Amino acid sequence: MRPRPFLPESLEKSAKETKDAYVRNRTDGLVWHRCTYRTLYADTDRSKVVYHANYLRYFEVGRTTLMRDAAYSYRQIEADGYIYPIIKVGIDYYSPLYYDDDMTIYTRPGELERVKLQFDYVITHGETGAIVCRGFTRHCATNSSGKPVGIDEKTLLLWKNFPK
Amino acid sequence: MRPRPFLPESLEKSAKETKDAYVRNRTDGLVWHRCTYRTLYADTDRSKVVYHANYLRYFEVGRTTLMRDAAYSYRQIEADGYIYPIIKVGIDYYSPLYYDDDMTIYTRPGELERVKLQFDYVITHGETGAIVCRGFTRHCATNSSGKPVGIDEKTLLLWKNFPK
Amino acid sequence: MRPRPFLPESLEKSAKETKDAYVRNRTDGLVWHRCTYRTLYADTDRSKVVYHANYLRYFEVGRTTLMRDAAYSYRQIEADGYIYPIIKVGIDYYSPLYYDDDMTIYTRPGELERVKLQFDYVITHGETGAIVCRGFTRHCATNSSGKPVGIDEKTLLLWKNFPK
Amino acid sequence: MRPRPFLPESLEKSAKETKDAYVRNRTDGLVWHRCTYRTLYADTDRSKVVYHANYLRYFEVGRTTLMRDAAYSYRQIEADGYIYPIIKVGIDYYSPLYYDDDMTIYTRPGELERVKLQFDYVITHGETGAIVCRGFTRHCATNSSGKPVGIDEKTLLLWKNFPK
Repeated sequence: MRPRPFLPESLEKSAKETKDAYVRNRTDGLVWHRCTYRTLYADTDRSKVVYHANYLRYFEVGRTTLMRDAAYSYRQIEADGYIYPIIKVGIDYYSPLYYDDDMTIYTRPGELERVKLQFDYVITHGETGAIVCRGFTRHCATNSSGKPVGIDEKTLLLWKNFPK
Repeated sequence: MRPRPFLPESLEKSAKETKDAYVRNRTDGLVWHRCTYRTLYADTDRSKVVYHANYLRYFEVGRTTLMRDAAYSYRQIEADGYIYPIIKVGIDYYSPLYYDDDMTIYTRPGELERVKLQFDYVITHGETGAIVCRGFTRHCATNSSGKPVGIDEKTLLLWKNFPK
Repeated sequence: MRPRPFLPESLEKSAKETKDAYVRNRTDGLVWHRCTYRTLYADTDRSKVVYHANYLRYFEVGRTTLMRDAAYSYRQIEADGYIYPIIKVGIDYYSPLYYDDDMTIYTRPGELERVKLQFDYVITHGETGAIVCRGFTRHCATNSSGKPVGIDEKTLLLWKNFPK
Repeated sequence: MRPRPFLPESLEKSAKETKDAYVRNRTDGLVWHRCTYRTLYADTDRSKVVYHANYLRYFEVGRTTLMRDAAYSYRQIEADGYIYPIIKVGIDYYSPLYYDDDMTIYTRPGELERVKLQFDYVITHGETGAIVCRGFTRHCATNSSGKPVGIDEKTLLLWKNFPK
């Protein structure tokens, strides 16, 4: 079953600074953070396409770039004593990426609970715009000893400040 | 939320040949193929546990060992002109694996449709038996040009012959 | 033993187009292609630094970006029926990269023989400029069936046209 | 240039316990530790062979298995407060491994200095015995803060007790 297309449009024509980082998807009406990445030979397997596990790497690129762009880098969050281990992932694959393909990674903060949070992802093909996959990663909040804690203030601000 | 424990028991006391490969989980009553594997330093990340994407590698170990043990290796299936690309994955993570940990990988053929099939997985800690994660990979059947086709006879036999 | 520092300077002040891609290292007098990359959480291991094998991925980033910038992408070269499998690698590690570190990857065409070629690499820390590692990959030329052949014309041009 | 073949023979016919773990290579007269491993789909790339960086994973399998078999596991050595980061690697590739290939990994303690040590590796094809690659990893000894220290007693014993 084909997914609905991802149709990005700039949030504001005048806002030059943010025009590359945030877009609205006309299909679902939601705002997404956008960054680009490129596949490596190392990412492919003998069927000539990117090995399915590597999309979780690309999701990490999206998530970490979003957090850095929002001024609360995950590096800083870990330095502050928090860890956000992944407790659940899901991916639907629609069309493969090949060697040296450009991709666009769309990421947005998803569901937020007291000690859990989710990021949602869409990857599209850099040239055709076709949807490559959709997925999510669900995280819990712990301190550096692995004990569950409430979500830290910086991460909450990321949710609060994400463009609507 | 803690998962129900995985409680393996041998299928038949007399069946020496199969005693390591197939077990019944007393919790769900289902038969699972069993193999073991060990984490590498390469699999861990800076939080000292196995990076979440690497569990998809371990699922591959389970799936490929099951197919080989069942006499229809995936290598042979690709040599016959079939490919089973992954169209969906899901993983629930319960407790992490660390460097040099032994694990037990339980795999079973899951849902089967005309052009799609699913493998289910449970990974437990080699020493404690605690559940590390549960997941699935969903595949479609294609020929070597990527065209959807019916599932090949050997793979259907794997489903048919898997111990009940 | 500490390596001699890498001291990049632009090739020509007026050449805006190439100022980011090519630099001369004042220490060795050689011209190097330059690109940047960033480490992922996935790249690190439990000792908190990048796992040693991943520097070969970064070398691939350098090599493939150099070839693309030089107008003879490796993707195109494989499409033309050539493969350049690696027959030898060597890396000296001087100081580690950590999670979310920016790096600069310097790459240049090294020794060239009739059916073999070499790329040389230096990776420096994005902020400090400290040398992270030096290395090389040595390749032979084959056709798509793996038979040794002479190096293709496009790749020879890359060597010929690389700024002196 | 073809490498000299690796011709393993058991150290002692009567020593059942060690017959799988240690062999003498008739070509070089040296004793090597032996273990086996199998390639994954994840390890291959679009040229259908194992991606060159993954041989460093296989070297890790050899090194870590040797240390565990010698009763001084690297896991324990890190628990004792030592780390052995890699400062240099080199690999010569002779013939590729494909998907689902069995390999034999031969490892031996190489050169030993006051604060540095080396492991040497040979990987052969599981069925044909053909040499896949040869290589080494060179390590320095540090404490858990990364400060250079002398090599710990357990690791020295590994060198001392390795069969001659």
